[in-house]
Amino acid sequence: MSAFVFPARTTTAEIELGTTLQPKFDAEGLIPCITTDHLTNEVLMFAFMNAESLAHTLRTGKATYWSRSRRKLWCKGEESGNVQLVKAVLTDCDQDVILLKVESIGGVSCHNGYKSCFYRQLSGQADPDNQASMTLQFVARRLVDPKTLYKKKA
Amino acid sequence: MSAFVFPARTTTAEIELGTTLQPKFDAEGLIPCITTDHLTNEVLMFAFMNAESLAHTLRTGKATYWSRSRRKLWCKGEESGNVQLVKAVLTDCDQDVILLKVESIGGVSCHNGYKSCFYRQLSGQADPDNQASMTLQFVARRLVDPKTLYKKKA
Repeated sequence: MSAFVFPARTTTAEIELGTTLQPKFDAEGLIPCITTDHLTNEVLMFAFMNAESLAHTLRTGKATYWSRSRRKLWCKGEESGNVQLVKAVLTDCDQDVILLKVESIGGVSCHNGYKSCFYRQLSGQADPDNQASMTLQFVARRLVDPKTLYKKKA
Repeated sequence: MSAFVFPARTTTAEIELGTTLQPKFDAEGLIPCITTDHLTNEVLMFAFMNAESLAHTLRTGKATYWSRSRRKLWCKGEESGNVQLVKAVLTDCDQDVILLKVESIGGVSCHNGYKSCFYRQLSGQADPDNQASMTLQFVARRLVDPKTLYKKKA
């Protein structure tokens, strides 16, 4: 697929209060993407997109990221079946972040088998000056054994 | 304030399924932070933290970011009064993102006077191969005139 070119960045006023999508990709060509459940607003995951993955997301209606470790397009769910159907695409004031609202097919967005990647929370007693207190508590239930998550296409 | 050192990264198993906070700061010493409304889960804003701002957030209970443009700690609300009181701190599976759940004092997290920085959404007819269709629609109401937002301390 050829590289996709989004409209160029113009003025601060147009970027922040205008109606043209002018996403800012960083020096590596990436933009952060927050993905939420379209019904509950729960944050499901965070990843990066490049222009090609954002265009692919818009064309297909399925969340597509850029895998920095594998250096390739990452069509979410292509292996696990847990596709994210895009219900809305938002951007922030300075258009350097994308926010997707999705329907998560299968209900599992994390490779560890949780609905959301954010399944741990700092304990209420966390004190940064006492490292032993900086413990995480699990705040979600594992829905799927991750060992079975990537075998659907096997 | 001296630099703060979080626990070192250990094994993938411990990072992803353990109970020790081991945040990953990138080559520039930064970690992405998503901030949500603690009651509705609505994403309010996105910013970066360095170790010092994360430690400051934990110590004070007020969301504190790192301003990349001003290259300084950014205690949210220090000028506008719209402080974010931290109700919960979560991290994701590989601990390279922070998620804050906050009570937004004043209810305005965006410098443009909106509750959330994500006040625009791509139109339903957005077609990446037709740039004229890539228009944003406002999906939120402006709560405050931004001209008045930073004059509270004047």
